[in-house]
Amino acid sequence: MATYDTVITGGTVANACATFKADVGIKDGQIAALGLGLGDAQHVIDARGKYVLPGGIETHCHIAQESSMGMMTADDYFTGSVSAAFGGNTTIVPFAAQQRGQTIPEVLQTYDDRAAPKSVLDYSYHLIVTDPTEVALKKDLPAAFARGITSFKVFMTYDKMIVSDEKFLDILVMARENGGLTMVHAENNAMIKWMVGRLLERGYDAPKYHAVSHPAAAEVEAVRRGIALASFVEAPLLFVHISTDAGARAIAEARMDGRMIFGETCPQYMFLTADDLDRPGVEGAKFCCSPPLRDVQTQTDMWRHLNAGSLQLYSSDHAPYRFDKSGKLSTGDTPPFKTIANGLPGIELRAPLLFSEGVQTGRITLEQFVALTASNAARLFGMGHRKGAIAIGYDADIAIWDPEKTTQVTAAGMHDNMDYTPFEGWELNGWPVTVINQGRIIVDGGELKAKAGDGSFIPRKPFDPTGFLPPRAPEMAQATNFGAKLF
Amino acid sequence: MATYDTVITGGTVANACATFKADVGIKDGQIAALGLGLGDAQHVIDARGKYVLPGGIETHCHIAQESSMGMMTADDYFTGSVSAAFGGNTTIVPFAAQQRGQTIPEVLQTYDDRAAPKSVLDYSYHLIVTDPTEVALKKDLPAAFARGITSFKVFMTYDKMIVSDEKFLDILVMARENGGLTMVHAENNAMIKWMVGRLLERGYDAPKYHAVSHPAAAEVEAVRRGIALASFVEAPLLFVHISTDAGARAIAEARMDGRMIFGETCPQYMFLTADDLDRPGVEGAKFCCSPPLRDVQTQTDMWRHLNAGSLQLYSSDHAPYRFDKSGKLSTGDTPPFKTIANGLPGIELRAPLLFSEGVQTGRITLEQFVALTASNAARLFGMGHRKGAIAIGYDADIAIWDPEKTTQVTAAGMHDNMDYTPFEGWELNGWPVTVINQGRIIVDGGELKAKAGDGSFIPRKPFDPTGFLPPRAPEMAQATNFGAKLF
Amino acid sequence: MATYDTVITGGTVANACATFKADVGIKDGQIAALGLGLGDAQHVIDARGKYVLPGGIETHCHIAQESSMGMMTADDYFTGSVSAAFGGNTTIVPFAAQQRGQTIPEVLQTYDDRAAPKSVLDYSYHLIVTDPTEVALKKDLPAAFARGITSFKVFMTYDKMIVSDEKFLDILVMARENGGLTMVHAENNAMIKWMVGRLLERGYDAPKYHAVSHPAAAEVEAVRRGIALASFVEAPLLFVHISTDAGARAIAEARMDGRMIFGETCPQYMFLTADDLDRPGVEGAKFCCSPPLRDVQTQTDMWRHLNAGSLQLYSSDHAPYRFDKSGKLSTGDTPPFKTIANGLPGIELRAPLLFSEGVQTGRITLEQFVALTASNAARLFGMGHRKGAIAIGYDADIAIWDPEKTTQVTAAGMHDNMDYTPFEGWELNGWPVTVINQGRIIVDGGELKAKAGDGSFIPRKPFDPTGFLPPRAPEMAQATNFGAKLF
Amino acid sequence: MATYDTVITGGTVANACATFKADVGIKDGQIAALGLGLGDAQHVIDARGKYVLPGGIETHCHIAQESSMGMMTADDYFTGSVSAAFGGNTTIVPFAAQQRGQTIPEVLQTYDDRAAPKSVLDYSYHLIVTDPTEVALKKDLPAAFARGITSFKVFMTYDKMIVSDEKFLDILVMARENGGLTMVHAENNAMIKWMVGRLLERGYDAPKYHAVSHPAAAEVEAVRRGIALASFVEAPLLFVHISTDAGARAIAEARMDGRMIFGETCPQYMFLTADDLDRPGVEGAKFCCSPPLRDVQTQTDMWRHLNAGSLQLYSSDHAPYRFDKSGKLSTGDTPPFKTIANGLPGIELRAPLLFSEGVQTGRITLEQFVALTASNAARLFGMGHRKGAIAIGYDADIAIWDPEKTTQVTAAGMHDNMDYTPFEGWELNGWPVTVINQGRIIVDGGELKAKAGDGSFIPRKPFDPTGFLPPRAPEMAQATNFGAKLF
Repeated sequence: MATYDTVITGGTVANACATFKADVGIKDGQIAALGLGLGDAQHVIDARGKYVLPGGIETHCHIAQESSMGMMTADDYFTGSVSAAFGGNTTIVPFAAQQRGQTIPEVLQTYDDRAAPKSVLDYSYHLIVTDPTEVALKKDLPAAFARGITSFKVFMTYDKMIVSDEKFLDILVMARENGGLTMVHAENNAMIKWMVGRLLERGYDAPKYHAVSHPAAAEVEAVRRGIALASFVEAPLLFVHISTDAGARAIAEARMDGRMIFGETCPQYMFLTADDLDRPGVEGAKFCCSPPLRDVQTQTDMWRHLNAGSLQLYSSDHAPYRFDKSGKLSTGDTPPFKTIANGLPGIELRAPLLFSEGVQTGRITLEQFVALTASNAARLFGMGHRKGAIAIGYDADIAIWDPEKTTQVTAAGMHDNMDYTPFEGWELNGWPVTVINQGRIIVDGGELKAKAGDGSFIPRKPFDPTGFLPPRAPEMAQATNFGAKLF
Repeated sequence: MATYDTVITGGTVANACATFKADVGIKDGQIAALGLGLGDAQHVIDARGKYVLPGGIETHCHIAQESSMGMMTADDYFTGSVSAAFGGNTTIVPFAAQQRGQTIPEVLQTYDDRAAPKSVLDYSYHLIVTDPTEVALKKDLPAAFARGITSFKVFMTYDKMIVSDEKFLDILVMARENGGLTMVHAENNAMIKWMVGRLLERGYDAPKYHAVSHPAAAEVEAVRRGIALASFVEAPLLFVHISTDAGARAIAEARMDGRMIFGETCPQYMFLTADDLDRPGVEGAKFCCSPPLRDVQTQTDMWRHLNAGSLQLYSSDHAPYRFDKSGKLSTGDTPPFKTIANGLPGIELRAPLLFSEGVQTGRITLEQFVALTASNAARLFGMGHRKGAIAIGYDADIAIWDPEKTTQVTAAGMHDNMDYTPFEGWELNGWPVTVINQGRIIVDGGELKAKAGDGSFIPRKPFDPTGFLPPRAPEMAQATNFGAKLF
Repeated sequence: MATYDTVITGGTVANACATFKADVGIKDGQIAALGLGLGDAQHVIDARGKYVLPGGIETHCHIAQESSMGMMTADDYFTGSVSAAFGGNTTIVPFAAQQRGQTIPEVLQTYDDRAAPKSVLDYSYHLIVTDPTEVALKKDLPAAFARGITSFKVFMTYDKMIVSDEKFLDILVMARENGGLTMVHAENNAMIKWMVGRLLERGYDAPKYHAVSHPAAAEVEAVRRGIALASFVEAPLLFVHISTDAGARAIAEARMDGRMIFGETCPQYMFLTADDLDRPGVEGAKFCCSPPLRDVQTQTDMWRHLNAGSLQLYSSDHAPYRFDKSGKLSTGDTPPFKTIANGLPGIELRAPLLFSEGVQTGRITLEQFVALTASNAARLFGMGHRKGAIAIGYDADIAIWDPEKTTQVTAAGMHDNMDYTPFEGWELNGWPVTVINQGRIIVDGGELKAKAGDGSFIPRKPFDPTGFLPPRAPEMAQATNFGAKLF
Repeated sequence: MATYDTVITGGTVANACATFKADVGIKDGQIAALGLGLGDAQHVIDARGKYVLPGGIETHCHIAQESSMGMMTADDYFTGSVSAAFGGNTTIVPFAAQQRGQTIPEVLQTYDDRAAPKSVLDYSYHLIVTDPTEVALKKDLPAAFARGITSFKVFMTYDKMIVSDEKFLDILVMARENGGLTMVHAENNAMIKWMVGRLLERGYDAPKYHAVSHPAAAEVEAVRRGIALASFVEAPLLFVHISTDAGARAIAEARMDGRMIFGETCPQYMFLTADDLDRPGVEGAKFCCSPPLRDVQTQTDMWRHLNAGSLQLYSSDHAPYRFDKSGKLSTGDTPPFKTIANGLPGIELRAPLLFSEGVQTGRITLEQFVALTASNAARLFGMGHRKGAIAIGYDADIAIWDPEKTTQVTAAGMHDNMDYTPFEGWELNGWPVTVINQGRIIVDGGELKAKAGDGSFIPRKPFDPTGFLPPRAPEMAQATNFGAKLF
């Protein structure tokens, strides 16, 4: 019997902390060996001239999920996971979204039913909590954490989703005490509603006004408030889809102050601008997402903050709504901006965009690429012990990238269930040609090799506060001399 | 007939911008002349060795006002104005507080009825708006501004008073468009409620826990949010009773950014600390106010920020609740901190404290004293054309200070309707021995010379944005290229 | 005999803290009375429809001074003071510049000889200290302070003038201990020299490269270092001609930290830009000054910082070098930028520019105008007890401004000894039509009424640290527990 | 023949980005294999229960180096490298210090002669440049970089070493253009000299006054100036031995601004305080180093900044001067602080202190420990392709740590040539029991296994600016529109 199930030979392996030439031996779905001349395998993949990288971990995507408006995403766990796989990913962590009225166990059951039979690669969920009842906070969320679903998202905006500051404090403390990581969509709800009112009052309802209605100031205010609340109870908090320099700076400065504050940005803020919303006719609807696309300066800012480590995560926020009645145009052919489903597709292009525009141009190192597409997410979301690196005993989750392969982006070329891509016509340098999940080849030579249901649910570890220890007295206990001892 | 009704001779006159020896001639309630040898008067006051200063303008005090709990202050417009007069003031601007259900015209009628027959000195009101209905914003507040009541207060805290961020934006815009100045009590309501819950849950209900329940972080968050909202719509905003270094800095920095943002602090944050809440028994209840007393560092911070001009106003926030059943102890002899009426008396001591601890110690100049006790408030609140300076044609509002007079502070020595003073036993150097309002001597030689109803209502001018002009596009219009032209 | 020598009737008087209608009675060179109907005078000036303001105090100008290159300014104390007078000023404080080798008593003698026989208005000097010997620091400067010359300037740049950081500390301490105010030209010398080298190496020697050779970063670095040094020994420091937002902010923030740090800007940074240096041919030489002209954003920044009080002073930095062999073109008709004498003329236009572009446009109030052109300088430079306000006993230094008078700026129309003005062709609204110094009319109806030598030397008081008291332990003593007690 | 020369079995391997159980196969001095059951070796090391980590890389130490006072360190390359090896290091990068008068080729020859015959482990040098002549900058330093010595240090303090700002700019540009990394000792020379003068003048010459003479403000000023200069020419700069919160923040903020600015701190600032300088008698001399020890707050600050990534490096700054005539007491038994040789020994304890107080207490993760003791230094100093990770083809540089081994620190127990340790009596948890350099066991079971001269010189790669690309126009070119195109 061969020593290894599969051996990848001759490639350049990169982790977030080292790059080296090595063969990779895979056995029983795990990395079994790293070395040279590991020939003895049932299956040998020739990776000469290629990069052998940890499979991408996409931790911000909306799959088989109803929006708060009740609209189902175009992708289910099959098309969504397939598209992810073609984009070099081996793990996805979409949202399991609570509908008001639903209990958390019901939510999880619903998503287990959606994901397990269909996903071609590994998955977990972040809960979206819209109804943070006593039961949810005391029992159901801790139970979900115990089952390995150790992160969840709340919203500081959207009337149907918003959590009050007071409830937010309860949530943060609950998470801290039970090892959960709170994620937050941070925009000031009032500023947005107020702007929408003003815009509509004046008849400004074209798609481009969506960008006007979500001003940068709304994000900055909410980020600062979120940091204040999290610092107050000394809880970890992750700000998703940051799109402002001031927001990113506040996050980095909070960490300098010893706070457990983290941030994510997305390709759309680095590669597109609000001018795309001003395309002729209703075309701009394709580019409506929240926070909205900003400007060229923001693109530079986001590169800087990824480089400087101000932000840890780079995710697609894949939110697939087709450019038809089922999605973007559900309210007609010239929808007012308020009724346009928010979100852009992008799960397949996330990593290729960063590779092409980051690694190939010298903006980032290959190792930073690995950190941003895989390792940082693995670490932050409790999978760092088995994913995010090519290391012995780790899941054999690997994407083999051909730096010479050039790809012309078209909607037709994508494997999601969408009818458009915001990156139509882009030419990308470098592509993941072979993708392996727990030892199984799931994509190779442009073809899907996995089938629905092959992926596994990955239980995740609690949020790890090491590096922020020893725990400090939270701000709430620092008011006075006699206050310092209370909590 | 004598040239002047009154002449003050031989004193040292100080305005906010100059100090000089001069006689002051008063005629028909106004300053008619400044010069030397202005002897010809019906009444001559010898001010040799004394300072002749603009009468104090106290713009933060609660008189004949129901609290949100429905409790009436111990002072009505007689005792309140008399106490103010003995403390060197000639104008007060208490609050006309809307009770939920009341219309603004009703509120003003109520307060006119309370003030006009009783006040011994000039007065105006700030409205407190708790029910910012369409009618209030579109009609009643503009009407009040037109009548000369050009400022009003809203709250970011207290469940019964709080305005939402969205309503706050409406209010700020309304004020900007109609020449009003918005004042705000800035504390994060959620943090406070959350802390109160935690404290009571653990049985911490002694007075001192009031200080713990209103953490500094709550003020800082609210100040930053208030600045974000006001900047968003480019409206003026005044933060009252600032008690944190970070809050004061944020205010000053906003002004450096060209924002119309102002701040006030109060003697209690400069002369007392939270340790006073920890006095034996229920004694700490006497020191409960919001924001709460802080620490020694805060005292220094507030001095620095007054000196640097970060904060413009220095007010008493006089909120007289007696230390008995009618006030502090309304819920019993050992009231839990949540039921203790908030507020300290101090209208009479505001200026003497600053004179004694500021001017006499060399911490501030006499001119800064005038600015902080009179001129800045006159300017900011639309009375700068007739009050806040000793200048020709200005109201003859004058306090003659004897720098040699030493006063031992006792509750009995105060002229308000209170049974305690937080400054019991303090020895103050310098005191206003003669006080003149519109030419009328209202206090002299320790005696009241005015009678109820002698004071006048002072219509005030709109907020003056000069110095912040030309008006900029508000932030809300800066989101995008196509957004810049909208508003 | 008439009661007053002169009475100004019917005008609107403005001080930095109040505006009011009053007649002004002048007697023996001082303001003797303010009131209405002060008719009884030898001389009556009708000021109806006009503003009666404190005469301008110009505290940054170069008159009868050799540059470090040895070139004498085109203006002597006659033409310089006359031009100042026509621009609404009544006091000037030029520099008495030490040439290396000269002792300070010699310097003062030299300048007394230059000024006394020629100045038409009041004057003092700031010493420029280039040779801070032991004798200078221990004896000569304290002696100069004692004589009433209580300010002096040092340079952080220019090889012939620069003081080292260590010497700077000695100077700052000497000044603090003897009541002097240190002024500093803050630019990083090394950055400038290095840039000059690079530029010349590449043959970039046209006038416009002067602006490139003094980058904004050089000012910002030097301002921050200056603040660090002054804070270290807790000494007052005034930064002249600030031309960067970051510089102005650092100054304001230092004051928020309790430091005695002040700043000045100049009209050229508010009304011109570096593009003026790029005018055809050698024309750009007319606009060479240091720090150099910046950009449109800087203009806005400087307005904001004057409004916010970040900067206290607004001065001309009048440095008159003619556009001929005697000045700008001393090294030929196409001088390389390094040999172009630095400085712009502007003593006459300083106040009119601010009046026209500030007061008349509503950017600043009339009172701010007074503060910026007169009162702040009087206060900071030890003349606040007799100058900078229209107050009883103050010097009768008055400029009567006609807000209706429009002036077309031309070089020929100026009264200095220059052959160009950087503001050629500007149309200014409002002009000082009558100017009075210590009761003497020195300009009226476009004509000079004073003669050489009429002005007086004004002894100035020590720098007043009130408002920054009680003195703190300087930073130098805060290093350690055992260090705190040392100094 | 066995497949591997050595196999380490059963241990837990940690890199900066992953931790995993694996055997490590070593062949020809490199890591040849990672896997399980790699039994076939000449030599097998049982690492069960132990951590198998990349060998420490110590990049700040003074060995066989004359101080600027001409005093030779107590350690030569034998004792120094042996002590390093016992502390878990496998590479050292001491300084090759130019004496004024020496050319750089002479310096390197001198240090080659000192290091090559004596070092027991791998080494390189940083040049110390005190005489940055034209030849040095144009020829000798580029030549040194080409030879693989790609970093060098300059000083902003010490009269004999200081480089002027202008020369600093030349140096930074030269380094940027030739792939060098500039390191800098950042303290304001003037503040220090000035303080020393004041202290000595007053007779304060005990060792503890050394701490007073190097105030925190001196470091902060110099760090900010260094950042300004490096940003000006867009060059990389590494600040060594940072000991202030403000310094560390400035460094992190510069990186957020896209600057190539890095920082290092040392164990002494995290584990000791200035109070140690106040020990009885002359004992404090043992704790004199520059920057000096600070306070307890600084300790916390440094932990925070290492955690937040504000600072990248953690080095010993080992500077061994014995507590006798040859070192600390060279000027007598009660040396005035100015004559006490600066520096603490600590090369052996650097990593064990961080392991014991960081990893074992949960303050940092094992992976952070690896980053801070090895990987970050490898990356920054051009060795990241072969050192700092346990990866295939990398040098077999390994420290096997026993987390259970407790060590009592004594001077006698150290392997350097010192007669004291500042950490005498500390009990440390965890110790590197076996140390391997390029496959050679150099320390095992408390015994030295290597001999003098076994170590190799490691040529290093140029500084890699990836992650800061694409290169921006340096600030120097941003002054004006016409300036932007110049450089």
